[in-house]
Amino acid sequence: MRFGVNYTPAVGWFHSWLDFSAADTARDLEAIASLGADHVRIFPLWPVVQPNRTLIRASALRDVATVVDIAGSFGLDVNVDALQGHLSSFDFVPSWLDSWHRRNMFTDPEVVASTAAYVEALARAVADKPNLLGITIGNEVNQFAHAPHPAPHDITADQGHAWAAAMVAAARRGLGSAVDAVDAVDAVDAVDAVGAVGAVGLEARLGSDPMVRPAAASRPGPLVTVAQYDAAWYDDAQPFGPEHAADHGDATITHSWVFNGTAALHGPLGAGSVRHGEYLLQLAAAWNREPGRPNWLQEVGAPTNVVPADQAASFTERTIRHVAGAQGLLGVTWWCSHDVSRSLADFPELEYDLGLFTNDGALKPAGEAFAALARSGLHVTSTPPATALVLDDVLPDGSPRYGTRADCAPGGRFAAAWLALAESSEDGRGPQVLLRSRLADEALRTARGIRTIVDVPADLDGTALTVAHPATMP
Amino acid sequence: MRFGVNYTPAVGWFHSWLDFSAADTARDLEAIASLGADHVRIFPLWPVVQPNRTLIRASALRDVATVVDIAGSFGLDVNVDALQGHLSSFDFVPSWLDSWHRRNMFTDPEVVASTAAYVEALARAVADKPNLLGITIGNEVNQFAHAPHPAPHDITADQGHAWAAAMVAAARRGLGSAVDAVDAVDAVDAVDAVGAVGAVGLEARLGSDPMVRPAAASRPGPLVTVAQYDAAWYDDAQPFGPEHAADHGDATITHSWVFNGTAALHGPLGAGSVRHGEYLLQLAAAWNREPGRPNWLQEVGAPTNVVPADQAASFTERTIRHVAGAQGLLGVTWWCSHDVSRSLADFPELEYDLGLFTNDGALKPAGEAFAALARSGLHVTSTPPATALVLDDVLPDGSPRYGTRADCAPGGRFAAAWLALAESSEDGRGPQVLLRSRLADEALRTARGIRTIVDVPADLDGTALTVAHPATMP
Repeated sequence: MRFGVNYTPAVGWFHSWLDFSAADTARDLEAIASLGADHVRIFPLWPVVQPNRTLIRASALRDVATVVDIAGSFGLDVNVDALQGHLSSFDFVPSWLDSWHRRNMFTDPEVVASTAAYVEALARAVADKPNLLGITIGNEVNQFAHAPHPAPHDITADQGHAWAAAMVAAARRGLGSAVDAVDAVDAVDAVDAVGAVGAVGLEARLGSDPMVRPAAASRPGPLVTVAQYDAAWYDDAQPFGPEHAADHGDATITHSWVFNGTAALHGPLGAGSVRHGEYLLQLAAAWNREPGRPNWLQEVGAPTNVVPADQAASFTERTIRHVAGAQGLLGVTWWCSHDVSRSLADFPELEYDLGLFTNDGALKPAGEAFAALARSGLHVTSTPPATALVLDDVLPDGSPRYGTRADCAPGGRFAAAWLALAESSEDGRGPQVLLRSRLADEALRTARGIRTIVDVPADLDGTALTVAHPATMP
Repeated sequence: MRFGVNYTPAVGWFHSWLDFSAADTARDLEAIASLGADHVRIFPLWPVVQPNRTLIRASALRDVATVVDIAGSFGLDVNVDALQGHLSSFDFVPSWLDSWHRRNMFTDPEVVASTAAYVEALARAVADKPNLLGITIGNEVNQFAHAPHPAPHDITADQGHAWAAAMVAAARRGLGSAVDAVDAVDAVDAVDAVGAVGAVGLEARLGSDPMVRPAAASRPGPLVTVAQYDAAWYDDAQPFGPEHAADHGDATITHSWVFNGTAALHGPLGAGSVRHGEYLLQLAAAWNREPGRPNWLQEVGAPTNVVPADQAASFTERTIRHVAGAQGLLGVTWWCSHDVSRSLADFPELEYDLGLFTNDGALKPAGEAFAALARSGLHVTSTPPATALVLDDVLPDGSPRYGTRADCAPGGRFAAAWLALAESSEDGRGPQVLLRSRLADEALRTARGIRTIVDVPADLDGTALTVAHPATMP
């Protein structure tokens, strides 16, 4: 199990890319390494690296590579996210996507081709680093599929698949990795296909189930991943859904933020809150097509708008212990390393107190809790929970059911049933999740170690909360 | 008469601020100086200098100051524009004004205070340079008062005045200049007044005519100016109008672009096209409250979408000769120095051929024409044209007349009448313009040297063109 930290530079936050300082970076990363973390996740700013659609700045790529090297000098592996995009309530969108140049960032062929060129160039810039953990296409890019982010970025789920496939293929090209069958379709072609002739055309070219990906276990080298915020799991209207998380790249990514209604419903240290990361990992596993595909809780933090500062350490410890009980866990990456400096304006209040370290480098109680767990080593079992709760992802006739994601959202009937089972389990681990659409797949059940299947009680009353898209969404 | 060039860096266009190269800058500026130009206008990118609302990057300010020094080494003065903002169809808006942080950039008190802080810091960074020509608040910031630029930026004319006053005051503070009475109202206070209690409150604090400014002649040191694109003069719906140009700062700025319909109407070398810069200067003079206030044609170019490349040199020469006939001329600044590199994508086609030099530094015919004029010296007379054409800016009852600006737009009845008078004048100079609202001010007429007053013929048929806001608007 990997144990890491999302790196938020103490000086200048991510604007520090404009004034890159190896010394500042080294000081921060040395502190992170001192916690016992084995990796960091880093975030170049898209418009800084690619200010014009056809200008990818070599010096910016060098700075990213330098950060990877500095991290390596402290024994840290590095995951590099490409499309930021969205960070801590701020959007960084290149001028070539704004005003007169406003185009759909997911489907416009020129935009997608150039975005892929950036992802590829970024991956290539760090491909030879021995401590490269992986490339993530971008931080929660699915935020851009709805307001208030710059429109028009509305897409269909199929267009989302084509885009994700194009970006993953670009990252693999940059890494020099073998490219999957679906990735062999050129990025622009894929999007052209969806844009011009619709998803049917794409499917015709790729086969009936084009998005099935080999498990990462079969792929050596750095991971390629697609990161989404939790509307993918909880909001039926979000074009990027569980399949986009589970069908692309080498691991299924989840980001757990209990300001999504969870903490309000369960209290900051309630079971539903400290199990929220674990729950998302089980949802992720349910949608994976390969039982061996790893799941990565790539973001989880203790936001002080709903978790009081004096409960952050306890929240951190309990969250990580529950997460460790999920099978197929690739790792957990805490958000974040350093509080945002009070000298920077307009961040949601919680961002000034989200670090394991204060802005000036003092270890906070949550940081101590994180470090204690990192150093002691967690008990991680490869044996999956034997019980699985069935999620109604399809209607009786087998067609997809709108409302599945609302059921999964905090307070939803499925979420409530999962939590009740988790709290009554003998070993303290929450149950697995089995899709109704895969219920008949005995081989899959066996491979996943599912021996007991439980339905959501018919009389369970669960009122789904609307998944908020608050300004406090990091 | 000042003779200058808007400096468009050959390598990386304005993205070169991200990879600032003194050597590249020196090569470009040496070439510009070789034309006989006496100044350049330069354009920092706002989000690069101020990426967070309370982070103004010292290194970015140093780069700007370095450019001023390099220019000085070639004998060039420099005008520094602050809020870019808008350049050649691209908008550069900081992330703290986008998405979750979208606020009215002209009226939100926090935004205005922080924008003023940037303008002040930029001015301070170059205040001690002996070759500083001036500070312009920003390039055509009035573009942001309407779509497709990021909303909501709608404002009233009074809010525009408060904003402009706040920015001019900020620039003066940065320069260490004496601050006018209106500027003495703190930036935030001014906007607070408009935002919270309305323009009446502001007027009450400042007197009945708060925007009257002393003529620049009385003010030593660098100029402070407010630049607008021509919707200010031609579009009655544009909140920033002629008064905003004429009532703030030390000179009245005009930007002349004949792709606004002028060239389509008159032909690339038609009188209406090659007199368009001159015409705007006369409009500017009409709105000035002080006869001695200088007028600056700060942008004019030969856009190849409407001026064929083989006519660019002739267009350039004729435009500048006509401009030199306008009284009170501070100078003319050609757009632009260097063609945009074909390696950069998404620019309007005309931007790749708008330079006096090609991208790789070869002098173009328009550049030769410019240089010949710069070296030979133009005949500039201080005697104003004796005839003035009356512009109906008020209704018979003295109230402002909506439609005045449409009359002034290319093809409008006032524009047509002015052009007819210009073409029939004995000395080849277009007439002055006198506002109906100031017709009775004999002292003003005398001071302006107006001896003959002409009305627009009642039977003149002029069909105003709609002022386009095309993507080709630099």
